[in-house]
Amino acid sequence: MPESPRSGCPINLTLEVLGDTWSLLVIRDVMFGSRRHFNELLTQSEEGIASNILADRLHRLVANDMLAKTQDPHHKQRKIYSLTERSIQLVPVLATMGAWGSEHLPVTPELSVRAKILADGGPELWQEFTDELRAQHLGAPHQPGAPSVLERLNSAYQARQAHR
Amino acid sequence: MPESPRSGCPINLTLEVLGDTWSLLVIRDVMFGSRRHFNELLTQSEEGIASNILADRLHRLVANDMLAKTQDPHHKQRKIYSLTERSIQLVPVLATMGAWGSEHLPVTPELSVRAKILADGGPELWQEFTDELRAQHLGAPHQPGAPSVLERLNSAYQARQAHR
Repeated sequence: MPESPRSGCPINLTLEVLGDTWSLLVIRDVMFGSRRHFNELLTQSEEGIASNILADRLHRLVANDMLAKTQDPHHKQRKIYSLTERSIQLVPVLATMGAWGSEHLPVTPELSVRAKILADGGPELWQEFTDELRAQHLGAPHQPGAPSVLERLNSAYQARQAHR
Repeated sequence: MPESPRSGCPINLTLEVLGDTWSLLVIRDVMFGSRRHFNELLTQSEEGIASNILADRLHRLVANDMLAKTQDPHHKQRKIYSLTERSIQLVPVLATMGAWGSEHLPVTPELSVRAKILADGGPELWQEFTDELRAQHLGAPHQPGAPSVLERLNSAYQARQAHR
């Protein structure tokens, strides 16, 4: 959070934390793309994020408790980024933004298919996905449905990509 | 829309249209504050928007079909701003952002009471509010509930303000 927010309105404060475009795109890639390392976030970015911007936003997101940075248990030299409880709770915001963009803006079919599934699923699917993310990123105990929401989103995305 | 968007992802495109902070705050003030004239938007701004930024964002929002600018029927010299169908459909985005901010950020009680009502009402209340906004801004025929959603939000806000 900035030290003197412009106002105490919840929409304003949310924009002050997330409204610089890149921050929310980084969260999107960790959430939907399961990208947990700096290099994956850099090289797989659809928007071609620059390395210095990515480093800055990751730093800010960790400082704002939107991401946690820990030692990768599998590689001594690598850090891994995880969502936190507060960024996991952004699922409804990302779902409604994705639904609005898919409806009103010139989206590409393969990049909007996941947004459509989330929009159609409504609050019940968002909750199921939220629980799944808690298990994936916070280590919460969880019995995901079979297939998991993330698997369903990704197989729809891959089917669309194969179509191109 | 920018001419060459960074990607066709619906979340990215939404951020490219709305992600500069001030644009969405202007829409919020037209939507929840029923502020329709330049001067109201300028002088009543909780965040103290600067006059040149307000003029620039209004211009861009009209160019992006997020606001319509027309002659005020009651004052020959004045222009009035209205929401469009595509900005009215942002209700779920603003509702989920407001809910998230109210939960996780240091909001002030009087500025977050409306967000809490919208969050608690869920998709059903959002739809009722959307229909009301269509009547208010697009002149769509509509029989609002009594009291209307906007009246309910505003009386809760005023009750909270009186508390301060």
